[in-house]
Amino acid sequence: MANKGKLYIIAAPSGAGKTSLVKAMVESTPHVKVSVSHTTRAQRPGEVDGVNYHFVSTEAFQKELGEGLFLEHAEVFGNYYGTSETWVREQLAQGEDVILEIDWQGAKQVRRLMPDAVSIFILPPSLEALRERLIGRATDDMEIIDRRMAQAVSEMSHYGEFDYLVINDEFDLALRDLQTIIRSRRLAIGWMQHYKADLIKGLLN
Amino acid sequence: MANKGKLYIIAAPSGAGKTSLVKAMVESTPHVKVSVSHTTRAQRPGEVDGVNYHFVSTEAFQKELGEGLFLEHAEVFGNYYGTSETWVREQLAQGEDVILEIDWQGAKQVRRLMPDAVSIFILPPSLEALRERLIGRATDDMEIIDRRMAQAVSEMSHYGEFDYLVINDEFDLALRDLQTIIRSRRLAIGWMQHYKADLIKGLLN
Repeated sequence: MANKGKLYIIAAPSGAGKTSLVKAMVESTPHVKVSVSHTTRAQRPGEVDGVNYHFVSTEAFQKELGEGLFLEHAEVFGNYYGTSETWVREQLAQGEDVILEIDWQGAKQVRRLMPDAVSIFILPPSLEALRERLIGRATDDMEIIDRRMAQAVSEMSHYGEFDYLVINDEFDLALRDLQTIIRSRRLAIGWMQHYKADLIKGLLN
Repeated sequence: MANKGKLYIIAAPSGAGKTSLVKAMVESTPHVKVSVSHTTRAQRPGEVDGVNYHFVSTEAFQKELGEGLFLEHAEVFGNYYGTSETWVREQLAQGEDVILEIDWQGAKQVRRLMPDAVSIFILPPSLEALRERLIGRATDDMEIIDRRMAQAVSEMSHYGEFDYLVINDEFDLALRDLQTIIRSRRLAIGWMQHYKADLIKGLLN
């Protein structure tokens, strides 16, 4: 049976503003949910288990990975991240759109398993703006920031593998762009045939 | 060379409000132009040659048709309608989006020649609303209205061949839907790679 909801992959270099944009979009758009990833990385101050991530031990992660329970997974800076396939498919079947906040490698894995997924890459307006945003976080020393800048450029080199590109210069405009992409998919024939079935039936009978 | 602009096919049954919606969209969206069709049908009061249609004789139309100058053409109620291929390709090469207001048969011809075209079908909210709109025009007698209703149902039976569906219940919402489709295409990777080439280059160099 076809999924009623749509799966969105959203990737971006660290510092591009992905998390804030996705949060604002989910709050302003009905029937969109963000997948909460499993991770083995340390919980940061302010983060809530089950909300920001499902924080799990490396042993627990590797066990579930071995059981094939992840739609995608990645190891970044020595930590594991992964998306539960069961939860995603349940949401889509119920007509919810699901957003995966993952990197280009995760995106590649998901596209293989779910080729109908729509993928969006968020770019900063410039390298200078990206560096400022990374410094603005003030949680890391300069060496880590330099490593993150290099990592960001590496991540950005895969932008061309995505269906859509959003540039986060002004937050409100980037948010509008994200909303435009999701709203347009809800005008696509497959979605409309499902959600406007009665109206269409009334016109053609 | 790839087209810079995007070709949109917009079809609808007579009375669905296509012409008014397209007019409002073109006025509110930069870099979108409507293709002016050639036709052999009689000029109606208020219509301007070269604006609403290029009004031509049947002999002239058939001559150009024989020379392969039309991207699509159709015969409706004994009159010919057609779209100049040269003009469309010129606009796309210049970075203009082009809208073709044609029927499902024309759409089928255009898709074959230009498979990248994005097609949109506009539906009325109900058969009752459609009949009221056709009667509201008051330019035809009931026999012609009945014939148009039958023609409309026949046209609508092809809605599933289109990429997007817009329901024109409230004009402003239907207009927003059309704008959303066009704006989302301008966030697609191909468009962005072209129009944001400098920004992307600055991020990856």
